[in-house]
Amino acid sequence: MNSHLLQQAEAEVALIEVFIRDQLRSDLPLMRELCEYAFDAGGKRLRPGLTLLSGRLLGASRETLFPAAAAVEMIHTATLLHDDIMDASPLRRGRETVCRRWDAVKAVYAGDYILSKAFTLLSGYNRSDVLELFSEVTSRLCAGETLQARNRQNLGITLDDYLEIIDCKTALFLSSCCRVGGLLASASDTELNALTEYGSQIGRAFQITDDLLDYLGDSEQTGKDVGADFREGKFTLPVILALRGRDETADRLHALLASSSATDETFREVRRIVIESGAVNRTHDYAVHCTRNAIQSLRVLPSRPERTTLEELARWISNRTE
Amino acid sequence: MNSHLLQQAEAEVALIEVFIRDQLRSDLPLMRELCEYAFDAGGKRLRPGLTLLSGRLLGASRETLFPAAAAVEMIHTATLLHDDIMDASPLRRGRETVCRRWDAVKAVYAGDYILSKAFTLLSGYNRSDVLELFSEVTSRLCAGETLQARNRQNLGITLDDYLEIIDCKTALFLSSCCRVGGLLASASDTELNALTEYGSQIGRAFQITDDLLDYLGDSEQTGKDVGADFREGKFTLPVILALRGRDETADRLHALLASSSATDETFREVRRIVIESGAVNRTHDYAVHCTRNAIQSLRVLPSRPERTTLEELARWISNRTE
Repeated sequence: MNSHLLQQAEAEVALIEVFIRDQLRSDLPLMRELCEYAFDAGGKRLRPGLTLLSGRLLGASRETLFPAAAAVEMIHTATLLHDDIMDASPLRRGRETVCRRWDAVKAVYAGDYILSKAFTLLSGYNRSDVLELFSEVTSRLCAGETLQARNRQNLGITLDDYLEIIDCKTALFLSSCCRVGGLLASASDTELNALTEYGSQIGRAFQITDDLLDYLGDSEQTGKDVGADFREGKFTLPVILALRGRDETADRLHALLASSSATDETFREVRRIVIESGAVNRTHDYAVHCTRNAIQSLRVLPSRPERTTLEELARWISNRTE
Repeated sequence: MNSHLLQQAEAEVALIEVFIRDQLRSDLPLMRELCEYAFDAGGKRLRPGLTLLSGRLLGASRETLFPAAAAVEMIHTATLLHDDIMDASPLRRGRETVCRRWDAVKAVYAGDYILSKAFTLLSGYNRSDVLELFSEVTSRLCAGETLQARNRQNLGITLDDYLEIIDCKTALFLSSCCRVGGLLASASDTELNALTEYGSQIGRAFQITDDLLDYLGDSEQTGKDVGADFREGKFTLPVILALRGRDETADRLHALLASSSATDETFREVRRIVIESGAVNRTHDYAVHCTRNAIQSLRVLPSRPERTTLEELARWISNRTE
């Protein structure tokens, strides 16, 4: 994120980190160490940024928005701790995951602890709509992971299955981060719907780009293992689109994926086919399409600097390389 | 639990199960299966019972109390799913644990799912005091597990450490189940404090008895592996009290525990020493003492059938064999 406006938003988000650290000041040294490690890893802080921008756009104060912005990042971190166990990931944001550096058990408990602290923060608003939003988010995150697990190695996975997975995993979460900003700004229904739709569309764009970077990215830049989805048998949009061809290349891809051979050599061939079939371009086009929908939905909102930042953010999301 | 009053309370609690099943009706077959398995295992349903009895005692309606009673059992089940991963337990309530029958990953996600559904239910009350109560409970459960993990194989564990662990693991949870009943009945501060103290004292008695049964129990009756705490290097009250002796037997016990030999033979010798040293009796006395405190604290509350049931429940807790 490079523009001046995005940098301003980032400076605001940096304040959230101090706030979070304060919330998680456990009197247990191990828990404190785990939490600090989990948050020190950095990350894009996209979710608190969305809450702050959405709320500020409609006139909510920073003080009003801070607890919610901290809570969404905490929920995100907690679920990442749990995701990394499921995926047995060695790396997260360029560093060892908690479950690798310590163990799965500590990752489970640190996640529960952070999750419950996040709900405590949210309960401070004394608003059931805010709480229901995020208990729905965590339910759907679990549902998405389960659906994804069920479709592992499933060569018959459809575009609808894929979209349902990314809606559960990412789009609902990002749209809820925007929506909560609106709720705390006492937005009208029209405004709330616009923010929710914006978040949902950039959520899709974000996850699709994430899945694309798993084929094209540079692991030094993304901080993740390239080819992880392939090795874990998660067939994402680039593969789903490449399999749609009715030619020999699609047959070859089908055979490679069905063989369950997850060597580096197989991955390189899969990647080559995915790129040469045009599926990578079509995947990128799909992300850009979602981005445009997102920007479109902002039109009903006030023309203020925060709206410009949200527009820039959307464009960055489908063009990012990290 | 045998008396007529306790049976009545149990019948009421059975209705909660239907309610919970309804809440967890996921559209994902695997999630539904995991949740049903986790709840079908039965269990004592002590927590929802406490919420119902405390609330009814002070005049709250069943309809008012039901969501909270369901939520406390759901939080309990979610944390048990996660505990079983930590403890690598093969059995829970006489059946294979979820993490053994499926795997740790599914146990993590099913737990998260149930936890978030429980918070959704609680948020329906639109009361921050209710929500804060249970986010504090989950925080403290994690803190208790961490503290317990840190004291594994620690022969220098003090009575204070032990009490802090059981307060985090059990007493705060049971006291919150009672307190929420009071909150939903708009109880006075005096009444709330009485219920909270009652729950806290029976919580201690409950956990101490649990720890005792790990030495004395019949695994067919408890549905748990006897000797599990010993094998996992968790030194609980029976051992802490037995180690206090200044004689050869205490030295022998010290040596046995320090050897980290977790064979059945070592366990039998440890158990013999713990019983013969009188530590088992002193442990039981401690539990009975807590029970008496619990009953004492109920005195300021109305003399209604629910209070009698709470008194009976307290007595059952320190004399139970399952």
